[in-house]
Amino acid sequence: MTVGETYKKAGVDILAAEKAKNRIARLAKETFTPDVMSEIGAFGGVFRFPSGSDNLLLASADGVGTKTKVASAAGIYNTVGRDLVNHCVNDLLVHGAEPLFFLDYIGYANLEPERVAEIVEGLSIACRRNGLALIGGETAQMPGVYSSGDFDLVGFIIGKTTENALIDGSKIRPGDKLIALSSNGLQTNGYSLARMVLLDSGKFKLDDTPKILNGVTVGEALLAIHPSYRAQVGSLLSTEVEVHGMAHITGGGIQGNLIRVLPDGCAARVDLSDVKIPSIFELIRREGNIPPDEMYRVFNMGVGYLLVVPDKRISEALVLLNGAGAAAVRCGEIVEGEKSVTLRRTV
Amino acid sequence: MTVGETYKKAGVDILAAEKAKNRIARLAKETFTPDVMSEIGAFGGVFRFPSGSDNLLLASADGVGTKTKVASAAGIYNTVGRDLVNHCVNDLLVHGAEPLFFLDYIGYANLEPERVAEIVEGLSIACRRNGLALIGGETAQMPGVYSSGDFDLVGFIIGKTTENALIDGSKIRPGDKLIALSSNGLQTNGYSLARMVLLDSGKFKLDDTPKILNGVTVGEALLAIHPSYRAQVGSLLSTEVEVHGMAHITGGGIQGNLIRVLPDGCAARVDLSDVKIPSIFELIRREGNIPPDEMYRVFNMGVGYLLVVPDKRISEALVLLNGAGAAAVRCGEIVEGEKSVTLRRTV
Repeated sequence: MTVGETYKKAGVDILAAEKAKNRIARLAKETFTPDVMSEIGAFGGVFRFPSGSDNLLLASADGVGTKTKVASAAGIYNTVGRDLVNHCVNDLLVHGAEPLFFLDYIGYANLEPERVAEIVEGLSIACRRNGLALIGGETAQMPGVYSSGDFDLVGFIIGKTTENALIDGSKIRPGDKLIALSSNGLQTNGYSLARMVLLDSGKFKLDDTPKILNGVTVGEALLAIHPSYRAQVGSLLSTEVEVHGMAHITGGGIQGNLIRVLPDGCAARVDLSDVKIPSIFELIRREGNIPPDEMYRVFNMGVGYLLVVPDKRISEALVLLNGAGAAAVRCGEIVEGEKSVTLRRTV
Repeated sequence: MTVGETYKKAGVDILAAEKAKNRIARLAKETFTPDVMSEIGAFGGVFRFPSGSDNLLLASADGVGTKTKVASAAGIYNTVGRDLVNHCVNDLLVHGAEPLFFLDYIGYANLEPERVAEIVEGLSIACRRNGLALIGGETAQMPGVYSSGDFDLVGFIIGKTTENALIDGSKIRPGDKLIALSSNGLQTNGYSLARMVLLDSGKFKLDDTPKILNGVTVGEALLAIHPSYRAQVGSLLSTEVEVHGMAHITGGGIQGNLIRVLPDGCAARVDLSDVKIPSIFELIRREGNIPPDEMYRVFNMGVGYLLVVPDKRISEALVLLNGAGAAAVRCGEIVEGEKSVTLRRTV
């Protein structure tokens, strides 16, 4: 079975999507004005503003995938907004940027207005916790485009940093060490595959409690809220400890995301021995009989966020991160070599 | 038949949506940080940046409604992106803001990657024409959320102005005159009703040419591209002619949008005698037997954009706008009275 095949069976064609992405990137590039500095922003677009200053705006657009379908099925509408805001905050955090404001879009065919407001309640809570303002948004009732009862939730975040403070991975050097911050489940990626394997086949209902989940229901495990790593990473960024690069582990997994910030000549050897894999992933792997390679391509597999720090600073960084409430562990190093990410896995 | 009833039959419940909007506004307000100045931005969120400067960022999120369904049915994917960008540019233009950059989101269940790229092609063309950069975006394949073959297209725009240059309607005074810039059809609003009346009932196919459309097909009339008014309005804003307020006529029609920029004590008497109503609206009204009140609530009815200028400047403004290629006509005045918008209609 080729990589991507299981996911394709679930209705998501990763490779075809990749092809469109390249043409899209070219079309976008044709629009670039002199203040666009996006080649330096792997996880967000970068724009100099005001023109001629050293202030940079960072912008990113994202969704939470078909986690919205799990939310609808569970009748829990006030958490996906938190997933979305935290996801977007983490994307900007990768570049050392502080979030400023957020706009949302909610599209649906038929959803009671109170449900829509509950979705926004989640956005509002997470915006307040991350110190950013929800300054606009749009709700669109689109009969015929959305399936009955379903919705899509899209977020748009703007943050700021300065040219000097921007973190883009260019300082990553052989010898640097990697730190993983734990994820608490799927976060916002891989839901189409997870739903196919666990729910569509009828194997589980959302309130089932398979033994491996230790008393947590399937619904609870799937809806675990995507954490914001802002407070924890912020506690490190506010010190003298240099951070050479960071990656938010979303669609594409550890390999697909860490490579986005590696400079040429740097190979990452990720050692996952100390990373705890949330049980939901083992449940999905087992029930779907999914090859480990594909699990690591689709899911974060326990690593929510990665940091690259100088070797001599790793102990200090771990103390600071864990002191701020993160579950941070060492997870490998950068070596000289062709830009690549290899995983030493436990499964 | 109460206002909204026909539209509700088409699956869009305007009043219920309005109710959710109010709770959403409250939830958003709870997140406001000191640099949010959104009470002054009817058509976009306003954020002071850098903090303490007089620079303002304006942001808006929007979609093109179920115009995406007409596009899919016609197999024409490279124009809805232009609709969306132009729509967003006009929303910022209302505040005198210059667009800086744009991000898009495309959600779908199954759409060939080439179709997705064609959608982005439209975005790219319109971004270049309006001088703004497409610096990011997201495409999400969401099986089960979207109907097969359908897609949603969402845009986020950021623009700039300064505190002094911001236009927010507060300068509107009794005696001011109104100018209408013509629309070329539905632009991006009212598609659910239009589709129900013209297409779902099976009365028309997209390539039909009902006599009233003068040789234009139903599909062409429905897909006419939402114009950007930037060049035309910009030619006025760059002169000494003061513009007291502007409104982009989208969902809610002339009344629902002009009222967003009126200050207390100002009533707008809109006189539509000289406004040409595109034939597509007459076709919809006739085929759906839709009450004129509702037509004016759902559709722009020929008015794409409104400007409020001082009485003594109206001739000059009309010359400038028409000289820049607009179809601009006088359309009434501001009088003293309770904040309201009344229409003198021809139908």
